[in-house]
Amino acid sequence: MSLNDLNTLPGVTAQADPATAQFVFNHTMLRVKDIEKSLDFYTRVLGFKLVDKRDFVEAKFSLYFLALVDPATIPADDDARHQWMKSIPGVLELTHNHGTERDADFAYHDGNTDPRGFGHICVSVPDVVAACERFEALQVPFQKRLSDGRMNHLAFIKDPDGYWVEVIQPTPL
Amino acid sequence: MSLNDLNTLPGVTAQADPATAQFVFNHTMLRVKDIEKSLDFYTRVLGFKLVDKRDFVEAKFSLYFLALVDPATIPADDDARHQWMKSIPGVLELTHNHGTERDADFAYHDGNTDPRGFGHICVSVPDVVAACERFEALQVPFQKRLSDGRMNHLAFIKDPDGYWVEVIQPTPL
Repeated sequence: MSLNDLNTLPGVTAQADPATAQFVFNHTMLRVKDIEKSLDFYTRVLGFKLVDKRDFVEAKFSLYFLALVDPATIPADDDARHQWMKSIPGVLELTHNHGTERDADFAYHDGNTDPRGFGHICVSVPDVVAACERFEALQVPFQKRLSDGRMNHLAFIKDPDGYWVEVIQPTPL
Repeated sequence: MSLNDLNTLPGVTAQADPATAQFVFNHTMLRVKDIEKSLDFYTRVLGFKLVDKRDFVEAKFSLYFLALVDPATIPADDDARHQWMKSIPGVLELTHNHGTERDADFAYHDGNTDPRGFGHICVSVPDVVAACERFEALQVPFQKRLSDGRMNHLAFIKDPDGYWVEVIQPTPL
């Protein structure tokens, strides 16, 4: 679909309000049961960097902010990093309610069975075949392999809470 | 918390696998009931640009890809725009299952009541006070105003499906 067709679809405001000119889609928040497993998955398997952490001791939860960026771009100074982290797109916020990791029956809802809503996050990679071979070698669970179904250019892996992570590459396969 | 402390937390792989060096956290997918209302909210109220649409006629759903970017950076060529859209961070994918907008009883789950999981998306703005005044003037529903509770530097508005959109500014208030 052409950009002109996209800009004239019902509902679309093609000429954005100048007031929104510097708005940034900063982050997506997911609750996680076991933060150690989630940090391992997102940093080791997917390459995210942990760039901030906030503890709310009284309310018994902690927030972890991760970004999939070149480490050289991460400010070393804590205040500078905090402001930078709030100004870039593509941040993942993980909320850990303390103690859920010790409750065998506790589980979060991935959004893909009733009641549905949130669907997935997606990581774009230079080579989706190579990335999926690496995920297989790392024994990451798949929701959908490249070879499953008709959409053979994309895969879905699952994070430790079962949230779906789509894996795509920008260029045609 | 210092970057060194963050990098040595249990679970964190500080030295990412070089295989992940070019990975990008590309998008977050939410299902929406009435795409026209959602396109209006995300383009008019928040300034997103609709950059791609994919129709699956047989399966009766369409995918809409939105990015909060300077329009000058959006490639006009369809193939170039499609590849670009898959290579940048901060894309919002909206899934519309055809016909849900005509079912008065149909609603998606925002993730913030049981069963919980996904929490919110967040838009960073240069001036959170000015942004919230504009949202009030546009009669956008709030989940939490700046003045509600103790966290007076952030607000939450609600999109047409009730998904929470946090509003923050990078600098101290």
